[in-house]
Amino acid sequence: MRPGDGPLHTERTPRVAAARRLTSRKHRDAERLFLAEGPQAVREALATGAGVRTLFVSPERHGDLVAAARDAGVPVSYVDATAMAGLSETVTPPGVVAVCQFIDVPAVEALARAPRLVAVLYEINDPGNAGTVLRTADAAGASAVVFGAGSVDPYNGKCVRATAGSLFHPAVVRGGDLPGVVGALRAGGVRVLAADGAGETDLDAELDAGRLAAPTAWLFGNEARGLPAEVAALADARVRIPIHGGAESLNLAAAAAVCLYASARAQRA
Amino acid sequence: MRPGDGPLHTERTPRVAAARRLTSRKHRDAERLFLAEGPQAVREALATGAGVRTLFVSPERHGDLVAAARDAGVPVSYVDATAMAGLSETVTPPGVVAVCQFIDVPAVEALARAPRLVAVLYEINDPGNAGTVLRTADAAGASAVVFGAGSVDPYNGKCVRATAGSLFHPAVVRGGDLPGVVGALRAGGVRVLAADGAGETDLDAELDAGRLAAPTAWLFGNEARGLPAEVAALADARVRIPIHGGAESLNLAAAAAVCLYASARAQRA
Repeated sequence: MRPGDGPLHTERTPRVAAARRLTSRKHRDAERLFLAEGPQAVREALATGAGVRTLFVSPERHGDLVAAARDAGVPVSYVDATAMAGLSETVTPPGVVAVCQFIDVPAVEALARAPRLVAVLYEINDPGNAGTVLRTADAAGASAVVFGAGSVDPYNGKCVRATAGSLFHPAVVRGGDLPGVVGALRAGGVRVLAADGAGETDLDAELDAGRLAAPTAWLFGNEARGLPAEVAALADARVRIPIHGGAESLNLAAAAAVCLYASARAQRA
Repeated sequence: MRPGDGPLHTERTPRVAAARRLTSRKHRDAERLFLAEGPQAVREALATGAGVRTLFVSPERHGDLVAAARDAGVPVSYVDATAMAGLSETVTPPGVVAVCQFIDVPAVEALARAPRLVAVLYEINDPGNAGTVLRTADAAGASAVVFGAGSVDPYNGKCVRATAGSLFHPAVVRGGDLPGVVGALRAGGVRVLAADGAGETDLDAELDAGRLAAPTAWLFGNEARGLPAEVAALADARVRIPIHGGAESLNLAAAAAVCLYASARAQRA
């Protein structure tokens, strides 16, 4: 803090109490606001002009982010340790939390941009998994990630943290109706592939045939149950990852990484 | 249970109390025994003849595993709900836990088998991450996984669960001294690659040059810090995964999946 930084807010200050309620989905949905915690997420939120409403920061911490927020006209509030702990969902609060406007866009808008690579999540329950897949999709160059109906809220704090700032990069579609999304993707010339351990083709065959060079959307299913047959049937093909050793399967985040990077490489070969 | 199955054991039964102590590393190391929880891990432990000492099971559960244990001459003890909860580290105990002998082998033994693909973990702290990398390595056909000194215990309950049974497939080396392991790998004709976000070459260049077809060991570093320069310097090359979007990096499990599957495909092309 510097002279003129204003008071040190406590958990009872109305703006802190209001922000703390955003740890609940009900309040996030009512306000269309969410919390982005930690320097990496805050930096990306500020960098992408993603509508940061307020920055909460611990005294003497994260001077670079405070400066960036002030440059962007974002109000900065210093908070005491108890208030920061209330805004944080981690054991060791990183000392900076941004209140951000929702960034998701309608499916039609995300898909109107002629995407080359899209990840579609179907009933992914674990926020850490969903956030990791979004981060990997961003790294692989995906332009959109669809959180299909039944998947975890992308604004869940654990999901936001798992994205490591990538939440602010691809277009995020929240709660998409899956048959509608798949139909729109196919109508837009995007080949839709279901990642499916029981698929009729495998990833090596897709690569060998050169089929992954086309604009592609990958459907990823629930961690335990995978994709139900009727959802997998919506895709142009169901693709399994070859298992060379004794493992029964890959976990979701690993499978998504292998599929998305196979596409990324094929599209650039 | 059937007539003749014997008593229902409680948490006070000495064999239950002794098994429960194996949730602590100190006791695991003293006894050279660990707990494998859940039907998948137990099935693989029994299938691979991995020295299962005892099977603890809840009444009326997992009849197939009880039969397999009896066929293998493994003693089966039925336990009540409190005893099972004490042996389990999950919120919803899966109702079956095996006491297994340590399965790790010395590095020289694992590396004497002319491995084609090896994963080496350096200071991986999170047991879920370590277990996931082992599972992915198994799926990619790795014949050995080295838990270098400073990495989590492969027999940690969360690690065992994250391997989803794969712990019993590749040769597991525990606590390997990293310069020694790397030296042995190179002496055995295995090319050693460090997965390194600041690497001097990238995975696409390695694939394009055909260099991943050789027998390869991948070094993976700590989740937050990656590989220290002096460890990365031990490798034949430091390889980064191309980042096509805005992401700063991949998480460990995703990066390992991309590297290991790139090798698996190149070795079979």
